Amino acid sequence: MSLKSEFKFQLPEWLQIRQLDLPDGLVTDSQQMELAIELSRLNIEHGGGPFGAIIVDRDSDKVVAAGVNLVTTHNLSCAHAEMVAISMAQQNLDCFSLREHGNYQLVTSCEPCAMCFGAIPWSGVTRVICGATKADAEAIGFDEGPKPDAWIAALETRGIDVVTEIERTQAQAVLNKYSKMAGLVY
Amino acid sequence: MSLKSEFKFQLPEWLQIRQLDLPDGLVTDSQQMELAIELSRLNIEHGGGPFGAIIVDRDSDKVVAAGVNLVTTHNLSCAHAEMVAISMAQQNLDCFSLREHGNYQLVTSCEPCAMCFGAIPWSGVTRVICGATKADAEAIGFDEGPKPDAWIAALETRGIDVVTEIERTQAQAVLNKYSKMAGLVY
Repeated sequence: MSLKSEFKFQLPEWLQIRQLDLPDGLVTDSQQMELAIELSRLNIEHGGGPFGAIIVDRDSDKVVAAGVNLVTTHNLSCAHAEMVAISMAQQNLDCFSLREHGNYQLVTSCEPCAMCFGAIPWSGVTRVICGATKADAEAIGFDEGPKPDAWIAALETRGIDVVTEIERTQAQAVLNKYSKMAGLVY
Repeated sequence: MSLKSEFKFQLPEWLQIRQLDLPDGLVTDSQQMELAIELSRLNIEHGGGPFGAIIVDRDSDKVVAAGVNLVTTHNLSCAHAEMVAISMAQQNLDCFSLREHGNYQLVTSCEPCAMCFGAIPWSGVTRVICGATKADAEAIGFDEGPKPDAWIAALETRGIDVVTEIERTQAQAVLNKYSKMAGLVY
């Protein structure tokens, strides 16, 4: 077996186009969440998983990266929307911890799974905004993994603020739409 | 600010060369761990972090992927050795869950942090072999993150066997060497 030495990590074409024209001035948590949810909705329309995330500069309100779930389309179990958004932000800002660069927040259409929860402290974001809940994801068969019950306190102890259930109903509607489309649950 | 739409995820050149000539028939846990530790040692000699990991086919004992910590060299906080090895294995085997393809184990020179712990169930490996411990990593200033104390039981509940402290002394020696080199701790 010949082992690959590289692969191209590429956002889907529709997201490449969408991010050319991201709105400025998404000031409120709800406005930012609506964009993350829009990405989750567009992702299922293009054959991906029902999750979207963005990274926003807390000082300027500019979106510095966008991500969607690419697990099945890219054969990468680590490519959850949050991980994609974090990685693209670090590539865009040329740093491995966003905290070294400024004050950034992760806006995710669904609360993080065990892996993404563990990735948040390393990313350097200082705030996390979540839409749908663990219960919403589990209701359609997704597994959130072995995440500690006190995950919010664990992040807050590390200086990372967490806000949950922002535009939850809209975010949940995308999960439910995906479920009705009989999407692959993994 | 112009947002990137892709980046090349590439193993370091020395690892590309090393993986052209990986040994066959690393049958025992210790033999497999020695390769993961060798990669961690080579990585610090080439300016990376002190962590290495491989994915091994449990039926054939063939190494199907290798990874090292690429956080600082690639500006990717998610690029821990385990995440790199898992992602390269999925690219090499063309699947997003290794469990769908066969019976694979993750061999990592140091026990997983909170993020890599959370990534293990999604990867599809059925066994994890660890070298150095959390205490060894913390002793030189690394943070393992908010991982549950009962992390081994949490993986075993999900059908993933865990073995710890395999060739721990050798693995710990690389961490200590890195610390003496005044390597960046993150």
